[in-house]
Amino acid sequence: MKYVQDIDNINTWLQKFKGNKVFFLVDENTHEYCLPNIISNLPDLKEYEILEVEPGEETKAIEVAANLWMSLAELGAERTDVLINVGGGVVTDLGGFIASTYKRGMSFINVPTSLLAMVDAAQGGKTGIDLGGAKNLVGTFTHAELIYLDASFLETLPDVQLRSGFAEMLKHGLIADKNHWDNASKSYPVITEELIATSAEIKQSIVDEDPKEKGVRKLLNFGHTVGHAIESYLLQKELPILHGEAIAAGMLIEAELSKQYCQLPEQEFEEIVIQIDKVFTRLPILEENIDDILEWLKFDKKNKGGELRFGLLEKIGQGVFDISIAVSVIKTALLNYIPK
Amino acid sequence: MKYVQDIDNINTWLQKFKGNKVFFLVDENTHEYCLPNIISNLPDLKEYEILEVEPGEETKAIEVAANLWMSLAELGAERTDVLINVGGGVVTDLGGFIASTYKRGMSFINVPTSLLAMVDAAQGGKTGIDLGGAKNLVGTFTHAELIYLDASFLETLPDVQLRSGFAEMLKHGLIADKNHWDNASKSYPVITEELIATSAEIKQSIVDEDPKEKGVRKLLNFGHTVGHAIESYLLQKELPILHGEAIAAGMLIEAELSKQYCQLPEQEFEEIVIQIDKVFTRLPILEENIDDILEWLKFDKKNKGGELRFGLLEKIGQGVFDISIAVSVIKTALLNYIPK
Repeated sequence: MKYVQDIDNINTWLQKFKGNKVFFLVDENTHEYCLPNIISNLPDLKEYEILEVEPGEETKAIEVAANLWMSLAELGAERTDVLINVGGGVVTDLGGFIASTYKRGMSFINVPTSLLAMVDAAQGGKTGIDLGGAKNLVGTFTHAELIYLDASFLETLPDVQLRSGFAEMLKHGLIADKNHWDNASKSYPVITEELIATSAEIKQSIVDEDPKEKGVRKLLNFGHTVGHAIESYLLQKELPILHGEAIAAGMLIEAELSKQYCQLPEQEFEEIVIQIDKVFTRLPILEENIDDILEWLKFDKKNKGGELRFGLLEKIGQGVFDISIAVSVIKTALLNYIPK
Repeated sequence: MKYVQDIDNINTWLQKFKGNKVFFLVDENTHEYCLPNIISNLPDLKEYEILEVEPGEETKAIEVAANLWMSLAELGAERTDVLINVGGGVVTDLGGFIASTYKRGMSFINVPTSLLAMVDAAQGGKTGIDLGGAKNLVGTFTHAELIYLDASFLETLPDVQLRSGFAEMLKHGLIADKNHWDNASKSYPVITEELIATSAEIKQSIVDEDPKEKGVRKLLNFGHTVGHAIESYLLQKELPILHGEAIAAGMLIEAELSKQYCQLPEQEFEEIVIQIDKVFTRLPILEENIDDILEWLKFDKKNKGGELRFGLLEKIGQGVFDISIAVSVIKTALLNYIPK
């Protein structure tokens, strides 16, 4: 994995792969708004094909994957070819999974076009699709050859999309870098390319240290254990929300667990609540939904031997992982999340 | 990957994985004839679940894979659990793929119960399913934790199944070990556990040297480039044949290419033809089918930049790889395969 800010790096990479085909995976929006700019800046691009999917989480589905594998086969894609994923996390997760399993693995490059994908989804080697309502139930750990970061893609994005990515940026500060938390909190709603790059670097350094999530990478799950359960629950109810909105809720709930189990100071807990509530409105969860959300928690990939394990905070800027928490405690924290 | 001949090794492995669930993937036949024996020899096996699929190549399908992923989720399978695949190549290919992609990868153990799986499919880390009629279009390179070899499973197998595996044993001799070719040829129809172990060792040493098929592993494709095309073509025509029968045909055709392009001596070529014809009857291919078979060749995963590349023989016991051959020449070799 190599994370680059100059498109010439893709050109240089393509020069090595002379003679093979390039495939672009896009959604309707990135096809129109991002792909032309990318193609015009790749003078060494010769033969290429474009595969388009619908935007939205529903696209991370086995039927879509089957169609893409078959399209690649029909277009004569070979194992030595490359897939360039241009889009948000849906496109980079799906495209990474398609590439990592097509003929047992072709290379792929990620060009994230949403803030969330730039600071999180496009890097770290987690690919996947959803199945039976469970997010990323099927996937691989496979790194992109390159990740190309260009903040200008964010100019056309609606605010709600930026907020979604901003949740992950706050998380990077909370688990690993108090300065980054302070800077990102102060800067909002302005999100500079420098802040984006810092977030991406924090994530990359954690992933490099522990690519397969055996240890320190579990820190990145802060906010995600409960957040994913809420996201899956609301998706099943046909009330889809953005990933970052779910993660913001998850961070609030897991910050409370951190206070109880990891000595997160009360004052820092309050600061986290104030900052997150400034950016994100509380989600429409009712007391009677909580048992269903707890059911989704049991699907979590990070569980071990039936226990629920969390990445939590000892203080702002310092996470801890593998913290076992009883279901009854999580239930109380979920109840406390609901505004009175 | 560790290849073992004593079931105690699985026991020892399971002891390390205390507290987690074991899942068995079987087909109807191995469920009845092999699984009870395995379970009764695993005193350390505690909680387990059995997933059953239909026997036959049609099982290596995306719909079957989707059902298995969802069954694992419903049964609460976690990333730290293990899948034990008990069956022929269909079960080990499919089960390896399921395990390597479930929640981004759980461990798996292979217990091959057919000769073909023992000497070929169960080892080497190639997992996969078929899609759109193309064999192994979707898959991963992921090694089993253990491969347990027990020749007693072969006692209930019909002769045609043994012949299918025997084709791969002959191939191992042809590409890497003249002694093994001589011994296996002479021994047939008796197939000793010693011969099986030698074949498995030849394959393992090649795979260890080149796990991702960048170089020497391509030798193992001898007979497979044309063989797979024939197999896919006949499957599409609803005339499914066993893998080994296709590979036997592929080896005859590719031996002719070896004579023309790699100086395989005429006398050795004749010896190969006589030995293979002693075991395998020629397949029902007609002159008018040949162009369709050549179309299937273009799907081959091993192609690079549109060229057809082969692993061929310089002499018995010594293969060469990355040999480019023009389609017109392959057409002639296919014609020569058809009995006059």
